[in-house]
Amino acid sequence: MAKDNGDGLAAIAGRIGVVGSVVLNVATLAIYLRGRFLLSAAAAAEKQASKKVKKAAAVAPSSGKPPVLPDSVIVLDHGDPTMFETFWRGPIGESATLVIPAWQTMSYFSDVGNLCWFLEPSFEREVRRLHRIVGNATTEGYHVLVGTGSSQLFQAALYALAPPTSDAPISVVSPTPFYSMYPFMTDFLNSGLYRWAGDANAFDGNDYIEVVCSPNNPDGGIHEAVLKSKSGKTIYDLAYYWPQYTPITHMLAHDIMLFTVSKCTGHAGTRIGWALVKDKEVAQKMNKFMELNTIGVSKDAQLRAAKILEAVVDGYERQPTTTAAVGGDANLLFHYARRKMTSRWRTLRDAVAASDIFSLPEEVAGFCTFTKDTAIANPAFAWLRCEKQEVEDLESFLRENKIITRGGTKFGAGRKVVRISMVDTDEAFGIFVDRLATMK
Amino acid sequence: MAKDNGDGLAAIAGRIGVVGSVVLNVATLAIYLRGRFLLSAAAAAEKQASKKVKKAAAVAPSSGKPPVLPDSVIVLDHGDPTMFETFWRGPIGESATLVIPAWQTMSYFSDVGNLCWFLEPSFEREVRRLHRIVGNATTEGYHVLVGTGSSQLFQAALYALAPPTSDAPISVVSPTPFYSMYPFMTDFLNSGLYRWAGDANAFDGNDYIEVVCSPNNPDGGIHEAVLKSKSGKTIYDLAYYWPQYTPITHMLAHDIMLFTVSKCTGHAGTRIGWALVKDKEVAQKMNKFMELNTIGVSKDAQLRAAKILEAVVDGYERQPTTTAAVGGDANLLFHYARRKMTSRWRTLRDAVAASDIFSLPEEVAGFCTFTKDTAIANPAFAWLRCEKQEVEDLESFLRENKIITRGGTKFGAGRKVVRISMVDTDEAFGIFVDRLATMK
Repeated sequence: MAKDNGDGLAAIAGRIGVVGSVVLNVATLAIYLRGRFLLSAAAAAEKQASKKVKKAAAVAPSSGKPPVLPDSVIVLDHGDPTMFETFWRGPIGESATLVIPAWQTMSYFSDVGNLCWFLEPSFEREVRRLHRIVGNATTEGYHVLVGTGSSQLFQAALYALAPPTSDAPISVVSPTPFYSMYPFMTDFLNSGLYRWAGDANAFDGNDYIEVVCSPNNPDGGIHEAVLKSKSGKTIYDLAYYWPQYTPITHMLAHDIMLFTVSKCTGHAGTRIGWALVKDKEVAQKMNKFMELNTIGVSKDAQLRAAKILEAVVDGYERQPTTTAAVGGDANLLFHYARRKMTSRWRTLRDAVAASDIFSLPEEVAGFCTFTKDTAIANPAFAWLRCEKQEVEDLESFLRENKIITRGGTKFGAGRKVVRISMVDTDEAFGIFVDRLATMK
Repeated sequence: MAKDNGDGLAAIAGRIGVVGSVVLNVATLAIYLRGRFLLSAAAAAEKQASKKVKKAAAVAPSSGKPPVLPDSVIVLDHGDPTMFETFWRGPIGESATLVIPAWQTMSYFSDVGNLCWFLEPSFEREVRRLHRIVGNATTEGYHVLVGTGSSQLFQAALYALAPPTSDAPISVVSPTPFYSMYPFMTDFLNSGLYRWAGDANAFDGNDYIEVVCSPNNPDGGIHEAVLKSKSGKTIYDLAYYWPQYTPITHMLAHDIMLFTVSKCTGHAGTRIGWALVKDKEVAQKMNKFMELNTIGVSKDAQLRAAKILEAVVDGYERQPTTTAAVGGDANLLFHYARRKMTSRWRTLRDAVAASDIFSLPEEVAGFCTFTKDTAIANPAFAWLRCEKQEVEDLESFLRENKIITRGGTKFGAGRKVVRISMVDTDEAFGIFVDRLATMK
């Protein structure tokens, strides 16, 4: 039965793969989850009950993906940072509840004196406080811009850096393996301003925009730009440059640096990212993109993010880093999340050792200027390789075992490697590693 | 002194006009407002005090544009719907306060079973309830999509309707005068998929996307599509099809209909729009745009909008429309806002009559199926024309009188006409009409 079911699911997934979204394969996710509910009467009853509760509370919020059970399909295709929810349900969460009266922030404008006129001053302040305390990027002399997630700011940066009048679109490159969204976000509108040109290491020319993701999505590598032309431009995507994922080794000061609350605090649903931009003209042009694309960014979302970041920084101001070992980490986001990530990576490496058909990037460590100790890197994704000769397509192989991952080809790499989210719920992660350990 | 100052401001505005943003001339706004504060010691002190308050309350929200004084520059360039704030400070506002715990809606996903997987179910429900009660558009059999304002959904619709593989971009047209943002939103990325082609009435061909804005921004006209080719596509921008702006005469059922909370309830800062889409494939493609552009839409913003729309509909369910005359309109958004708009339009027409150098579109009335009475249309913008021969550029003429408007050329019309927001604060509107009445 289990085998039949597994084959059936794999067949469905194969068919869907042809027509579905490459970027966020939600159709697959939905069908799998529906399939799962058909199998599980208990879960179906639970869903029914939850529906009733939702109906009673009129504007009840969604609760994300449904919970998983031991026989569930485990979806680790997206970096959905639900791991952090437990932290925010803890004591610190109480100070980060957002309350917005009906009449508040109705205007398009937040601060007409600011270059980024839709930027909530409190959000900007908390961003600067956060960087000061973590020491991962300098904000002194930088413009802060806000975006609907850092994806929008990535596109804003392409718009700002591309020459406005040119015969041919400028080439956008990133070293493989690169984040699977970059090519799609660059090319989906078939812009005459910029065009995806693939692997930065294979690029030949002086005019380009290089995207440097560090720590790198998907493989966690720490990178500098690989191209060094005077007329070339660089965007640093620093979504994962936070202490839970990597030791903080440098206070970075690049021309354009992108961050997002999704991966910093786990609030992906809030869709708030920010950019630190050195040059005023570039900042103005990025801002222009935001005006034309969405006439600014939701103030409710900005206030939510401000409240969350404030709680993070306040947590550290109240309890110095050095006392984390004694006082616990229930109020120290980065300590809590690093501990969780370290434990997950240990569990994953044990499972990989038990199975003996997989390999992972080597563990790296460094001195972290934030926690003032030597720490290992715990990437947000596992870049898992299959060493078994018969397995040519690892994504399909894992799918047959009801584990949904993102195949290497989407990152400019091969089919024997996949990207797996390490930031999902404890339940999903636990089932995933248990299954992985038994694969032969 | 007043004259000198006026000339100085006009000169600055002239210089800025060359380099500034055509779309949201915020640089001008900022300089004017800064100028105003320099002139007004009282206002400066007030700002200082407000800064202190803000510092105390850490994540205090912004308060939009600074308040105006009798000698202020009045900025009516944008349709910033701050008029509605008074309503939401009233009794109904109490039921629409939004509370979001720190751990809530952290996932990217809202409903994995929905085509629009990032759509909060409560927001969708309130949208459908609202249309049912107002009767302005049918939702039966339609997909509801959410966007970061309706601007994003406009771009999503272009993406969805443009042929993906074609030698030349498809033409995007709208009858003049058209909303000044359409050309910029269509062309700013120099997309190979679609290209702005101007006035729909001047268009010759069978393949196009026609944008129909009704009631029309800027002039309030009620429109149907002017082009009628079988292969042509149409987007209905219905941002202003609400009872405060126009009598509701038909339950519309077009293929793609766009709405926004900005103009419906006044919550522009929340940046939430929605689309009603008949065809599933078109809805899927629009959704794909939202995934690639911003990986969905902020859940905090959606929950805010859901809460606001819920309060609007609840207000009407508790107090039937027919009792508005007796029970007052403090809980009836559309009645309140129609009363305000009617009063403003009367005041404006009086001022225009007093001045004798301007003209406005003729007043139109119709039977409103929502309020079940005959009502006049009260457009969100005044499309003001100057009949004085010497005034060739009305935007400049008004700017000399410290009234900032948007000139007709940006809408594909002439320089003797401007668009003026009718939905700003009572204070700004009052100063504006007082000044207008005395112009000769």
